[in-house]
Amino acid sequence: MTSITALLERSWARSSSLLCVGLDPEPSRFPLALRNDPSSTVTFCTAIVDATKDLVCAYKPQIAYFAAFGGESALEAVIQHIRAVAPDVPVILDAKRGDIGPTAQQYAREAFDRYGADAVTVNPYLGYDTIEPFVERGSVFVLCRTSNPGSGDLQSLMVDGEPLYRRVARNLCERFADSGRLGLVVGATYPEELGEVRRAVGSVPLLVPGIGAQGGDVEAVGAALTTVGGVVVNSSRAVLYAGEGEDFADASRSVALATRDELARVHRTHQHRA
Amino acid sequence: MTSITALLERSWARSSSLLCVGLDPEPSRFPLALRNDPSSTVTFCTAIVDATKDLVCAYKPQIAYFAAFGGESALEAVIQHIRAVAPDVPVILDAKRGDIGPTAQQYAREAFDRYGADAVTVNPYLGYDTIEPFVERGSVFVLCRTSNPGSGDLQSLMVDGEPLYRRVARNLCERFADSGRLGLVVGATYPEELGEVRRAVGSVPLLVPGIGAQGGDVEAVGAALTTVGGVVVNSSRAVLYAGEGEDFADASRSVALATRDELARVHRTHQHRA
Repeated sequence: MTSITALLERSWARSSSLLCVGLDPEPSRFPLALRNDPSSTVTFCTAIVDATKDLVCAYKPQIAYFAAFGGESALEAVIQHIRAVAPDVPVILDAKRGDIGPTAQQYAREAFDRYGADAVTVNPYLGYDTIEPFVERGSVFVLCRTSNPGSGDLQSLMVDGEPLYRRVARNLCERFADSGRLGLVVGATYPEELGEVRRAVGSVPLLVPGIGAQGGDVEAVGAALTTVGGVVVNSSRAVLYAGEGEDFADASRSVALATRDELARVHRTHQHRA
Repeated sequence: MTSITALLERSWARSSSLLCVGLDPEPSRFPLALRNDPSSTVTFCTAIVDATKDLVCAYKPQIAYFAAFGGESALEAVIQHIRAVAPDVPVILDAKRGDIGPTAQQYAREAFDRYGADAVTVNPYLGYDTIEPFVERGSVFVLCRTSNPGSGDLQSLMVDGEPLYRRVARNLCERFADSGRLGLVVGATYPEELGEVRRAVGSVPLLVPGIGAQGGDVEAVGAALTTVGGVVVNSSRAVLYAGEGEDFADASRSVALATRDELARVHRTHQHRA
């Protein structure tokens, strides 16, 4: 399987975009014509993909929104649609999996064989041996510093003079960066830490959630940029639920376009500074 | 929903067993007549349940083994079968979920509404706010000290003079123990630490994986026992794959019975010492 580093480098160059649209389908927030109807999930998600496919460097379907209502076949259909209409756009399955070896292998099968994802998000708490079954089969974005209010409970605890998330970032890079199959998740809600992590991990791709609905600012990603891109900046709700009328997909496209352009501006500024 | 503490206290008393059978169906290890046939998953798992239902305090289906081959409906059928033939046996869905608030709510729906589990295993790395959506809807077993070789990579790092897993155990208890909806996962492969955690968490139930195929010893659980039980000792592969002939369920029953009796012996010894 092609490494996520190679896939993203091509995708950043082709799309000139750092934006990733997160597919978190919530039937209660669907446009009026589809509202509260889980069976409209594929219709909704494919309309969003069709409206944004030239504006993104990646898609990130979040499996929980499908699994909550038995929508695994909808998730399969959405990913197949992305492959059909946007074959060059990497798909990151947001599943935050993590388990000991033999079980991690099953989760890797779920992500890479069943859903055909290019990368999956995984949780490092169980230890680095539990990341290996994923890296053997595909690529990972490992949780490092997340965007939620309580993320510091564990991630910011000081270990030998550095916060845990930085220790995790360093250790993962030592072990997996050479494979090109490693990325890290670092939230946009902690801008200084994005820069710190970038300095610690070289060119490893960072998946950055938290802009838009979660309050993170696009300026925050400046410190994490590399010349070729370096970041996959996710926006889910702000794009997905931009409109609720028949033109909902146009509304989503407008938000995606504006966000892509804002990110491109930050990228230009950053390159000029560099 | 009844708290896992209340459910387990009844179950330990009724069954006189500390054994939990983990349902990790691997078609390549099924008995010869069913081997390599994922569509036999329900047949296999329900035969194991029928053969062991009077010997266990809980069942723990591991969702990855179902999800790897699209077996969500098989998992639903297996849990429904447990409810039908063993309505007093709690079901712990082993899914090791974890995500930020709105997504954690979807995972909680998956575990409690869709599958009807009594408790779900969750990962603490994202922070304690991410545990709340689960505790609002049902009970949790939070990963504390896992049974794999690399579990120390994060879990044993020293934070203010104590290992991270103990800090996590303490913090979780302060926040959630009163609800009766909190349990912790502590592997049998680290016996001293089982005792340490028990001393730190009072009577909170501990889910103990790692005996049998993973090499942990039943004696290891001694230090974690309470008068009423206190531990849910999981065995998966050693029970499930005890035989491969037509009498495979009898072979599984024999292993389950021997393990239950060994655990009961350790429990009696411990009570005599206490």
